[in-house]
Amino acid sequence: YAPTRCAAAQTSAEQGVLPPCHHHEAVHDPQLVPCTCPLFSCPWEGHLEVVVPHLRQTHRINILQGAEIVFLATDMHLPAPTDWIIMHSCLGHQFLLVLRKQEKYEGHPQFFATMMLIGTQTQADNFTYRLELNRNQRRLKWEATPRSVLECVDSVISDGDCLVLNTSLAQLFSDNGSLAIGIAITTSKVHNAENDA
Amino acid sequence: YAPTRCAAAQTSAEQGVLPPCHHHEAVHDPQLVPCTCPLFSCPWEGHLEVVVPHLRQTHRINILQGAEIVFLATDMHLPAPTDWIIMHSCLGHQFLLVLRKQEKYEGHPQFFATMMLIGTQTQADNFTYRLELNRNQRRLKWEATPRSVLECVDSVISDGDCLVLNTSLAQLFSDNGSLAIGIAITTSKVHNAENDA
Repeated sequence: YAPTRCAAAQTSAEQGVLPPCHHHEAVHDPQLVPCTCPLFSCPWEGHLEVVVPHLRQTHRINILQGAEIVFLATDMHLPAPTDWIIMHSCLGHQFLLVLRKQEKYEGHPQFFATMMLIGTQTQADNFTYRLELNRNQRRLKWEATPRSVLECVDSVISDGDCLVLNTSLAQLFSDNGSLAIGIAITTSKVHNAENDA
Repeated sequence: YAPTRCAAAQTSAEQGVLPPCHHHEAVHDPQLVPCTCPLFSCPWEGHLEVVVPHLRQTHRINILQGAEIVFLATDMHLPAPTDWIIMHSCLGHQFLLVLRKQEKYEGHPQFFATMMLIGTQTQADNFTYRLELNRNQRRLKWEATPRSVLECVDSVISDGDCLVLNTSLAQLFSDNGSLAIGIAITTSKVHNAENDA
């Protein structure tokens, strides 16, 4: 359950800027997807079906399997910006969890966590993801529809439409500098209703 | 379900400072409790049993009853600092919900929500409270042990040990400027385990 951090995270920290999101501009063939590894200005692009092998092989991002998994993000003290990334294989699809430490307000790093489907938004709308923190008699749960990796993770995070943790909450939920994030994916209620009919 | 805002909130905003928390210094008789209405430097003090009538009569704070209630905080756009306060009567006890809009970082107001038992911390340890926001296919849940009103709500909020919402999340969960907060109180697992034994 060790996380894979993008190698470029530290580079970005040294430059003090986040790379801009080129996703939509860079894709000329609508069937081609840019590399979805955040904080990494990777020139790769390919079809959706080969995003997963690219992320595994080039960026060494691990895949966890199962309906409910626990992702352990270590070294939460690392300076912002830093990303923790894992793929989650579930219900016949692959999802990308991005946990980002970022200073929206200078000197006050926050943690942002979101889940994206390696697929289209129409496919993503069929699912609900849940992120759960549970420690010290406190529990925090965030549930939402995953976004498609065709969207830019930077804009999801800058919109704040994700699980947001300030440093003090992150510390309350951390154990020895590591944050255990429970992840569950379910089919969304629209589909359950169809099954019931 | 209309909220009661402390009359002093606007006064504090004009002064630009939060009043310091005098609770522990002011209480000479350990059986006496200061007024627990946040943002209000009320000189009242009395025994725990008469805190509820004081809050109702002097500060016009409403009481909602039931195991699961919904508190509708209106006018979320009001400038920080502003408090929304309600009492919740449940399982033979009264709880105080405090929702506070405050600028920890200048120009970036956040919302902080916590629940306190009008009783001692030993009594509070028997309960778990849950705050839930649910709108636009997103759900955010916070569960924790309530604090005692003998503690200072200011320190709970400055510690960040509560539900924290930035402005963008608050807007996602708001409807027409109002935030509906689902509140549930249960006896904590320690007691459930005793019941099972």
